[in-house]
Amino acid sequence: MATVKLWTDVEVEAVPAVKTVFDDIRATRKSDFVNNFWRALANQPSLLERTWSSVKQVMIEPGTLDPLTKELVYIAVSTANSCSYCVHSHTAAARTKGLSDEQYAEFLAVIGMAAETNTLANSMQIPVDQEFLIG
Amino acid sequence: MATVKLWTDVEVEAVPAVKTVFDDIRATRKSDFVNNFWRALANQPSLLERTWSSVKQVMIEPGTLDPLTKELVYIAVSTANSCSYCVHSHTAAARTKGLSDEQYAEFLAVIGMAAETNTLANSMQIPVDQEFLIG
Amino acid sequence: MATVKLWTDVEVEAVPAVKTVFDDIRATRKSDFVNNFWRALANQPSLLERTWSSVKQVMIEPGTLDPLTKELVYIAVSTANSCSYCVHSHTAAARTKGLSDEQYAEFLAVIGMAAETNTLANSMQIPVDQEFLIG
Amino acid sequence: MATVKLWTDVEVEAVPAVKTVFDDIRATRKSDFVNNFWRALANQPSLLERTWSSVKQVMIEPGTLDPLTKELVYIAVSTANSCSYCVHSHTAAARTKGLSDEQYAEFLAVIGMAAETNTLANSMQIPVDQEFLIG
Amino acid sequence: MATVKLWTDVEVEAVPAVKTVFDDIRATRKSDFVNNFWRALANQPSLLERTWSSVKQVMIEPGTLDPLTKELVYIAVSTANSCSYCVHSHTAAARTKGLSDEQYAEFLAVIGMAAETNTLANSMQIPVDQEFLIG
Amino acid sequence: MATVKLWTDVEVEAVPAVKTVFDDIRATRKSDFVNNFWRALANQPSLLERTWSSVKQVMIEPGTLDPLTKELVYIAVSTANSCSYCVHSHTAAARTKGLSDEQYAEFLAVIGMAAETNTLANSMQIPVDQEFLIG
Repeated sequence: MATVKLWTDVEVEAVPAVKTVFDDIRATRKSDFVNNFWRALANQPSLLERTWSSVKQVMIEPGTLDPLTKELVYIAVSTANSCSYCVHSHTAAARTKGLSDEQYAEFLAVIGMAAETNTLANSMQIPVDQEFLIG
Repeated sequence: MATVKLWTDVEVEAVPAVKTVFDDIRATRKSDFVNNFWRALANQPSLLERTWSSVKQVMIEPGTLDPLTKELVYIAVSTANSCSYCVHSHTAAARTKGLSDEQYAEFLAVIGMAAETNTLANSMQIPVDQEFLIG
Repeated sequence: MATVKLWTDVEVEAVPAVKTVFDDIRATRKSDFVNNFWRALANQPSLLERTWSSVKQVMIEPGTLDPLTKELVYIAVSTANSCSYCVHSHTAAARTKGLSDEQYAEFLAVIGMAAETNTLANSMQIPVDQEFLIG
Repeated sequence: MATVKLWTDVEVEAVPAVKTVFDDIRATRKSDFVNNFWRALANQPSLLERTWSSVKQVMIEPGTLDPLTKELVYIAVSTANSCSYCVHSHTAAARTKGLSDEQYAEFLAVIGMAAETNTLANSMQIPVDQEFLIG
Repeated sequence: MATVKLWTDVEVEAVPAVKTVFDDIRATRKSDFVNNFWRALANQPSLLERTWSSVKQVMIEPGTLDPLTKELVYIAVSTANSCSYCVHSHTAAARTKGLSDEQYAEFLAVIGMAAETNTLANSMQIPVDQEFLIG
Repeated sequence: MATVKLWTDVEVEAVPAVKTVFDDIRATRKSDFVNNFWRALANQPSLLERTWSSVKQVMIEPGTLDPLTKELVYIAVSTANSCSYCVHSHTAAARTKGLSDEQYAEFLAVIGMAAETNTLANSMQIPVDQEFLIG
């Protein structure tokens, strides 16, 4: 149903630029499973490389935000952008990173609340308070 | 520039249903400052009450997600929904809740990354992997 | 601040294809005021003509939905699309078509509610019930 | 295909906080059918309660906007937010509230028109006319 | 799964206003295949006519933008609006108009990049440079 | 009005990681003008570097899509995402790359048309034709 071919492992093996990225995905995640997102991007090797390199740097390398927080932020954006694929894959990722049912319930309450107040603020075209401006 | 009047404190004092909510906002936040969002909602007392009651329950009452995480999720949604008011007010709120420059930089990287991969997944109409489905 | 020139009445007078549309806008609305949307579209005469012809047919010619309902639906879409210009112009239009403060308060409650439940349904990726499907 | 379990009636019976809401949904709507949205929210009892209480107040209790107008506004927002579930469920609801084929055709024309002009106004970044501003 | 009936050729034959448009679609595209979008719009003859007339004028009549560029712009908008149907139909159309795999890969990189920088600019609420303003 | 400081040239000079990127922006574009987007990103040096590196690769390095087409696609996405900053900056960029008034008029017609049909397809939940599916 995709607009592009999803590469099988056999096809990946045949193209070194793609194989290198897939090998790194597997090594980094310590798992053999490579999800469809990367199998679709395999059609565009330079986009595949750049995207994986960014995802690895942003989502996987340690920083000051913990991994679960980053996943929740990711799901929030994906929900607002109606990306069904991304919501599914990152909700699954969040669960493997320890998301509890209680946290998920609170997360849903927050994104619902945010969407509601976004709509109210946008519809009433409320001007930003001076107090919120920088400098 | 709003589509509704922004209520002054004098106007708020004159309407008990509105005054009660404003008093609770001030008491709950331990601050005299009430931002324009609530001054706009004052035109719709029942919506004002229900919205404040929900925001208080979702964003302020303690739960299993820490307050800063909730603010980041809120900003993520507000950004994706292009709500300028909400981005300003909740970025300011996040800073008062301890958001560091480094965390903000990482947050921006995550929402940018999410928007990019949302777009790629939506444009290639990638089917959800069986592995991500529940049950 | 626009990306195009906003045409003055003097400029409009000089271009027959544009003048014809502006004359019809004024005659149809029984008002001399022509808002910036049309002054921006004047740069693209064929788009101006086609857009005005559609707006006139859809929003002004009588049908089975009353004019105020159509304005509310228009504002709802414009809010969700974060079109500041459209929210302002159509909220003003709704008021001239009789929108009361009480109706506006209820309208805001509905669009806020819709945005919240949209987000919840999209985030939990709830499957459509068989009962809702046609045929 | 959801990211959460959809509760069966047997599961609902076992949790009083959930059962109370489901009973009220059935009593309020005078129908035994409870759609998947609520079966998904059952995983988050406090969100379920708050959401149902708001939906009931906003969409069902009588006010100054008629029920069909509220449904049309709801579908308009849901369409703009690409919520497939919400479009399906509220289009079905609108039909039970009397939406005729002719009204639906006009509604589609309005939301299409709105989306088109939203895009034109946003792309040309048209400034809001002074005439549309409050106060 | 649609909210409306998709008209079969037999049903189309029976309604002259619909048949005329379908005949013109087939003649203009030099193909017997009429996709579901038009079969859904057949329920609303005046919307069908107006939409086909606009699509024909905008997308098919020769102008200063080449047909492939117009399709890419169309897919870009459809992706950002999460319209699965439109992404599929216009990606297919772009391929028949000569879209190569290499161009598609570059296109995906551009829309991903745009979505990422949109998010960054919206989240930091960056003010527009004077240099970009007209006049 | 931004949520972050916009770096002046003096501030840029003081931070080598930022100065290196700014120097490359100026050299690549053969212009001294550096727009606010980069002055905002300067607060996040690693995000600045990664973003510039991607923008340079995607938008500036020669490929199979011509530079003007890429700008039009960029504006299309930015409009749909309601990014005022991005619409302004890339419309200006498109003009420097040769966008004529006639092309801009056609471009606006296409994105308006796309938004309208996106909305119609999403609201009627039209199923994708088998003919559009790959494989």
